[in-house]
Amino acid sequence: MKLDFSKMEGLGNDFVMLDDRDKRIEASISYSDLARKLCDRHFGIGGDGIILARESLDHDIRFVIINSDGTEPEMCGNGMRCFAKYLYEKKILTHRSMRVETLAGTVIPEVVVDESDQVSSVKVDMGVPVLSCKKIPFVCDHETGIEESIETPFGTKIVTTVSMGNPHAVVFVPDIHGVDVEGIGRAIETHGRFPEKTNVEFIETVSDTELRMKVWERGAGITLACGTGACASLVAATLTKRTGHRALIHLDGGDLEIFWDKESGHIFKTGPATLAFEGSISI
Amino acid sequence: MKLDFSKMEGLGNDFVMLDDRDKRIEASISYSDLARKLCDRHFGIGGDGIILARESLDHDIRFVIINSDGTEPEMCGNGMRCFAKYLYEKKILTHRSMRVETLAGTVIPEVVVDESDQVSSVKVDMGVPVLSCKKIPFVCDHETGIEESIETPFGTKIVTTVSMGNPHAVVFVPDIHGVDVEGIGRAIETHGRFPEKTNVEFIETVSDTELRMKVWERGAGITLACGTGACASLVAATLTKRTGHRALIHLDGGDLEIFWDKESGHIFKTGPATLAFEGSISI
Repeated sequence: MKLDFSKMEGLGNDFVMLDDRDKRIEASISYSDLARKLCDRHFGIGGDGIILARESLDHDIRFVIINSDGTEPEMCGNGMRCFAKYLYEKKILTHRSMRVETLAGTVIPEVVVDESDQVSSVKVDMGVPVLSCKKIPFVCDHETGIEESIETPFGTKIVTTVSMGNPHAVVFVPDIHGVDVEGIGRAIETHGRFPEKTNVEFIETVSDTELRMKVWERGAGITLACGTGACASLVAATLTKRTGHRALIHLDGGDLEIFWDKESGHIFKTGPATLAFEGSISI
Repeated sequence: MKLDFSKMEGLGNDFVMLDDRDKRIEASISYSDLARKLCDRHFGIGGDGIILARESLDHDIRFVIINSDGTEPEMCGNGMRCFAKYLYEKKILTHRSMRVETLAGTVIPEVVVDESDQVSSVKVDMGVPVLSCKKIPFVCDHETGIEESIETPFGTKIVTTVSMGNPHAVVFVPDIHGVDVEGIGRAIETHGRFPEKTNVEFIETVSDTELRMKVWERGAGITLACGTGACASLVAATLTKRTGHRALIHLDGGDLEIFWDKESGHIFKTGPATLAFEGSISI
């Protein structure tokens, strides 16, 4: 069987994009085997995962993502931006805003197009941030955790805590390059006041519209980018009056623009998705 | 500019194949920059190198290969097989035997095709093996180095020496898996009797038509495959009456069939070349 595909990339994550609305692929090979085969960087196409468009009963489309090792994650922010660009440019969907079914629920990406109707970036509604310490969860005397002191082997650290569905502790620093991300990150991640552990963002304020971020992800360590971490950091920067409701955040993997809409309370994350190449492969 | 390409692979080396007979690519980007860009496994296509077809004044075609780091090697056996398959299946050349211009001189690959005229493997004339110790060079009392004893920190080793343009010392062993390839390989590579050092092949005789090989490459150490080493090993196996003039050699990267033609004295190496996928990319 011959498969047409697009190879795309977002903030350093790369994916093989496929259209299986007619279930022709599923009928001939398991998605898990297909992902292992296609993601091999020497014998296949190469990628962190494959993403497939499937028909949905009650959404515009269904998003299926399979990692290179054959496992199926619930969602992936970088993959979702690539997916929206793929759907729009392949004319699989023709409206800029899309209701997408994922294992993590409904996601609503919206493509931003240039004058030649190509997708330059994708904006995703990330929902409403949760500040309640109980819900984050963060052990605290106050209802919300704004600039709370916590004791670590590296001294007292000031954290602002936010949940974007997962817990975040944001630490503002004068210079991002001098930070011991691993040491302090791990100390805060596993601190007793975070009963379910936490992601840790280190943020340098460049201006009231620009931040620099390094991240220690819960269970994963240092990574190039963390979408929910960027959202949590903008919330923390707004609450502590370092920025307004919109900022460009520089991550090691690239830039994200985060906007906290005061009216709806929702956070919107806008980021890049790039077509590397298109091709066809026999499987 | 939009580039059409084929992604191919031979014995674990993978390449992006391009047609630049009209010099359209060269006019817009240096091959070195192009190779770095296309070979990136996350942001480009991914590959160990790019291979370009160019017009030749006095050959059927010219072979240009650029490594992923932008450097230009003289030749590459795995790349040459991919090149021949690409030329034949893209109908750039229509005869099965091709005279190819390379920085290392003329190479003459010949494609082996299946019933649907697809290339299943490629045979390359590797020239005439050189046995003269002076020319290899190998310090020895005899004119040729057949089963010569040399002293190493690992005990006395019996080597048969052959040059395929580069020096080889072939060591026959009862069981390939028990061999200290690095220890003994390095000791023989740097032994005083090899003034220009040597490649070292360890060979287990499976039958009179089948060998297993592990290789220690001069200056590179353990590698998955070495085409000239496979040729030298068949010569050594023939001279010591372990095989006839033809054998299948199992290397860690895959299989090669080596034939020593008694009439012409030439060695022919037949090996695999595989199409991974085809695509197009904007640069």
